[in-house]
This record gives sequence, C-alpha cells and structure tokens, in this order.
Amino acid sequence: MKAIITVALVWVGALSPAWSESDTIQLTLAESWGEGAPVFGETTRRFATLVEQLSGGRLSVQVDSANVHGQPLGIFDLVKRGEYDLGHSASYYWKDSVPNTLYFSTMPFGMMAVERYAWFYQGEGMALMDEVYQPHNLYSFPGGNTGVQMGGWFRSEIRTLEDLQGLRMRVPGFAGEVLSEVGVETVNLPSTELFDALKSGELDALEWVGPSLDLDMEFHSVAPYYYTGWHEPGTELQFLANRDTFDRLPEDLQNVLTIAMRTVAYDMWILSHHRSAVNWQQMEREYPNIQVRSFPPEVMNALRDANRRLLAERAEQDPLAERIIHSLADYQKGTRRWIDISERAYLGNMDAQGNRIE
Amino acid sequence: MKAIITVALVWVGALSPAWSESDTIQLTLAESWGEGAPVFGETTRRFATLVEQLSGGRLSVQVDSANVHGQPLGIFDLVKRGEYDLGHSASYYWKDSVPNTLYFSTMPFGMMAVERYAWFYQGEGMALMDEVYQPHNLYSFPGGNTGVQMGGWFRSEIRTLEDLQGLRMRVPGFAGEVLSEVGVETVNLPSTELFDALKSGELDALEWVGPSLDLDMEFHSVAPYYYTGWHEPGTELQFLANRDTFDRLPEDLQNVLTIAMRTVAYDMWILSHHRSAVNWQQMEREYPNIQVRSFPPEVMNALRDANRRLLAERAEQDPLAERIIHSLADYQKGTRRWIDISERAYLGNMDAQGNRIE
Repeated sequence: MKAIITVALVWVGALSPAWSESDTIQLTLAESWGEGAPVFGETTRRFATLVEQLSGGRLSVQVDSANVHGQPLGIFDLVKRGEYDLGHSASYYWKDSVPNTLYFSTMPFGMMAVERYAWFYQGEGMALMDEVYQPHNLYSFPGGNTGVQMGGWFRSEIRTLEDLQGLRMRVPGFAGEVLSEVGVETVNLPSTELFDALKSGELDALEWVGPSLDLDMEFHSVAPYYYTGWHEPGTELQFLANRDTFDRLPEDLQNVLTIAMRTVAYDMWILSHHRSAVNWQQMEREYPNIQVRSFPPEVMNALRDANRRLLAERAEQDPLAERIIHSLADYQKGTRRWIDISERAYLGNMDAQGNRIE
Repeated sequence: MKAIITVALVWVGALSPAWSESDTIQLTLAESWGEGAPVFGETTRRFATLVEQLSGGRLSVQVDSANVHGQPLGIFDLVKRGEYDLGHSASYYWKDSVPNTLYFSTMPFGMMAVERYAWFYQGEGMALMDEVYQPHNLYSFPGGNTGVQMGGWFRSEIRTLEDLQGLRMRVPGFAGEVLSEVGVETVNLPSTELFDALKSGELDALEWVGPSLDLDMEFHSVAPYYYTGWHEPGTELQFLANRDTFDRLPEDLQNVLTIAMRTVAYDMWILSHHRSAVNWQQMEREYPNIQVRSFPPEVMNALRDANRRLLAERAEQDPLAERIIHSLADYQKGTRRWIDISERAYLGNMDAQGNRIE
C-alpha cells in the first residue's frame, strides 16, 4: 500500500492537473469489512474486477479490508483525508459526527430497496446526499442493498411492550435510538463477541442482517425467536470517493468508476436476496426450533411513535435534516401507494384471498 | 444506416478475426419500440450513451426505432441474420417460432423482478437462456424490468368466473393462452387502435403495462375497473446480440456492452417503479372514477389451474421446456418463502396488524 501512496504523492507533487489517457492508474479502496466478508466483500472485489475489465486495464483498484487499515468505522475520515481514494462502508456509521449522513442508509418504517433506489436515482436522493458529503470533500454513491433486514433474534417471545422493556439488545444506528426510547437497553458489541453474549444471557436479543449473513453466526441455536423487519427495510451500503482524486481522473474513467459502483450495488441487492432465500430454506429444513414472529400491534405502534418523535426533534434542530426527512417521507408516501396495488396485491392474489383494495 | 452496414461488410470482407484496440466501432441496434417511446426507448438511449461514455468514444451504438426498420416484432430475425448487431425487445415475442423463448420474459403466477434477476444472475437463468438462444447465433441478456404489471382495464366488474367468460380482451403472450383456456376471447391489436376499440365496446377489456405507461393511453376514461396483477409479475425486456459481431469485439468492449446492458436493465426497473408511483398518484387524484379490484378467488383459482395445465403440456412436449419450467418453479418456491417473511411481513408490520407468520 505504501508504494501506491507514494505514486499518488508524485502526481500531486508534479502538480499534474489530471491523469492523461495513456497513464495506468491504481486507486486504493478501504472497506469496513473483514477479509473475505460474504456479500459485502464480494461486492468490493467484483467492483475491482469490473473497473479493470471496463477500463481495459488502464484503471485498477486495490481493496484493503479492515484487517489491513485497522479502522473499520473510520472509512469516512480515511477517504476525506485522502489516505485512501475510495471507501466502501455505510453512511449511517457517521451519524454521530455528521448527523445528516444518517438518512442515506436506511430508516425504521422507511423505504424498501426498490423505493430507495428510485428516490436516489429518480427523486431527490443523490442531490441531497451530495449536499451532505460535498463539504467533507467526498462523493457518496449507493453501494449495495441488503434487502429487508430481519428484526433480530430474541431469547424469549415478545407479547407485550413490557416484554421488550428492560431487555439488553445489540442494535446500532437510529433503530437503537428508537428502541432506547421505548425502554430497551441498547448496546453495540464487536461481531466476534455476539454469539457468546447471546448464549450467556449477557444479551437478551440482537439484530444482525437476515438469513444471508445470520445463518453462519448460529444465533438460532441460542435465541429461537426470529422477528420480522421494521427497522432496516432496505439498508444501502455506500461507496465514497475523495473528490480531489476523482476530479483528476479522465472523464471516461470517472464513468467507469460510477457505472461499476452502480452495477455492483444493484448486484449486491440481488445476491443478498438469493443468499437469504437459499439460507432461509436451509434454516427452515435444519432448524425447526426457529420461530418466526412479528411484534404485536402495541409494540409496533410504540416504536412508530418513538420514531416520529425522534425525527421531529432532528428536523427542528437542522433545516437540511428537515428537508431530507420530508423528501424521504413524501417520496415514500407515493411509492407505497403503488406498492400496495402492485407487489402487495400480487402476493395477495397468489394466495387467492381475493382481497379488494378500494 | 447503409453506410454502417457497408463498414461491417468491409470488415467481414477483410476476414479480420477481430477489431483491434485502435478501431472506432459503430454498432447498430434495432428496438421494438416507436421513436421516443417512454421508459423502453429511454433505456436504449441510455444504453447508447453509457457505451460511448465507458468506451471513451471507441464504441458507439446507433439505435433504430420501429419506424426506421419497420419490423417491431421481427428483432429476433434482424439480429440473427446480422442485419443489426444488437436488438432490444421481449423474449416472449418469439414464443410462436421458438417456443422456449417464452420463459425469459415473465410468467403468470411467476416471479417478481427481484426474484427473476436472482434466478438469472445467481440461479440457472442465464445458462438456460443461452441454451435456447445459442442455436440461433444469438446472445440474450436481461433488458429492463417493468415491475408488476396491472391485470388490465375492464369496462365492467368481474364478480364471478362467468363474468369473465365470453369477454373480448386484448392480452398477448402466455397470459392470453391462460385466459383463452378459461373462456375469454383473446385478441391482439396494434397499440394505436386500443383506445377506440375499448371505447366502442369492440373490446371489453385489455391489459397494457401499469400506471407508468397506462396513464397516457387514457383507458381509465372508458373502462374504470383496474385489476391488480397476476399474469406479468415482473416482465423482463431483452437485449439481443449477434454472436459473430459480439465475439469479434475486443474483450474490454464486450465488457462495456454487457455491463451497460446490465446497468440500464436495472435502471429501467427503478424508472418503471418511479413513473408508476408518480402516475398512480396523479390517477388517484384526478380520476376518482378508477376502481381498483382484484379477481375473486374463484377466478384466480381457475386461472391458476389453467396455467398449470398449459405448463404441464409444454413440459411434456419438450425436455428443455421441462427443465426450464422446473428451474423457474423450484427457484420461485425458495425465494417466495423468503419474501413472505421479509418484504411481505414488513408491509404487514407497517400496518401494525401484528400478523403472526408461523
């Protein structure tokens, strides 16, 4: 990696305004994930392959996993400072230092993948995201969707709001804030400690992703209640690019980067869906102890109210937050009306329930 | 266009085994759609733009709409014979001459877009599609998804199977065969004649796409019952490439073509979703006479039985058809189990119905 940084410095040192078309350029990418991470890590490797293929070898990307750079949650700063040219992470990881980055990953009660991509690419999403990242000398792009995430693994069943209150649960992000608001003790722990903590009862519950990544974690063997999703309905990962580096690239290589990102992001969504479908079949077959549950209406309503209160606070504190929150809500309202009479109605028709939608 | 064909002939004449890296290459694409067609035509134009951008101008694509080549339903032959290098159309258009092309667009009671893409890219879809198209000297690629299509516009409400029987309806493809099987008189008419035929009562019903493209057709003003989908749950359009042309391209330009196709196909899905959401809002606001309905269970069950019978006949007649039909059914079974506890459960949770999925 040192050699590559040196090359970059030489370019800067020569005050070269842009790479020329004959240069062979190597960029570096820091990802939040451990080496060989399934789905997420497959996405960055595929990105590097596509960039090389599309550019005919003129551009290549070296992917450094968290074990190389040692800062899984520091990708924002690594790319902002130019220590890496590119990053792959999740926008809501930066919500404590730059609060408005929160909204570009996923939101409780929010949009599913198809709706979120439509907001990004056909609605106001990309422009608003640029408004948030531009002051930090960063470009941000959609980086792959997990699909609807499951609500998590619980050691005991949740029949009332009281059953939830006082539980100790690993759940990061805004969903953690919402659960805290209704009385859950929320914590974050490194992924390597999660299984033991759940087994010993140090944790009563945790959420991870969904069958695509949950199966290998074996949470099902110690916490059999698997709750359906409400809190991360379509989590979008993120590519970051240092603006100085990106702006110096020839235009066709800028296009190679953005189209490769766009394609592998969509591909990750499809891969996540496939892996979850395959793994869920295995889980149903081999682990009949798993009990799928949805929170009762009392719990869902309490969570929804808490979510609304917290969003209203954020909107009141910051005009840009207010614009983003309203843009998300307005877009979702329209797209959900359509989903109700398309995908949802179709699934209902497949059961031949004959429900009428008036 | 003549000039381009001449250039192609010169290359063939020189027995050049492949274009070299320094050549500037122009390919031709024939699309089934009329000039400036929304969504579909936007997709081919965006494809041409992406190819030019990604290749730094080394490769360009001239898109000819149906008014230029005059054969909207003849794209398969135009590309097979090499009169065009590329095509953009729909695989089920060739079902009468090459029956096994049917399965790569959409099937009644079949997979939605996310499921179908997963079957193509992570399941057996691409390999099976290649098996069908290879003997015709063609490559076939996913070309953009419409999302769930609506079941169509009806002049009167369908309360029983009898209400459906004897109706004259414009509905092409396999869905047409299924509806014929239960007693509908199915026809196909040019799109330009549809509105008048529905208005005059020459047609009792028709299906088109969904709000994205239906709004401008104004069917709602003469047939107010808008039925939810069952017959085209995620119609995938198709890119075709002549294998001789494609194989002679330098590898990086082959990659440019396939990645541009892949990206614009996904983008069309997102665009379709966006347009349907926006147009459906307008339709709800401006045309309160529109009545959304789903077929009653009696009708859905009759259609499902007819669909099964027709598929069983096809499977019995042709071993390749049998493999494709089984691959689709097996994959759908797995992915639908996952959709039930992810997207479908999520939408249920948003209503706070608290349904339990056991």
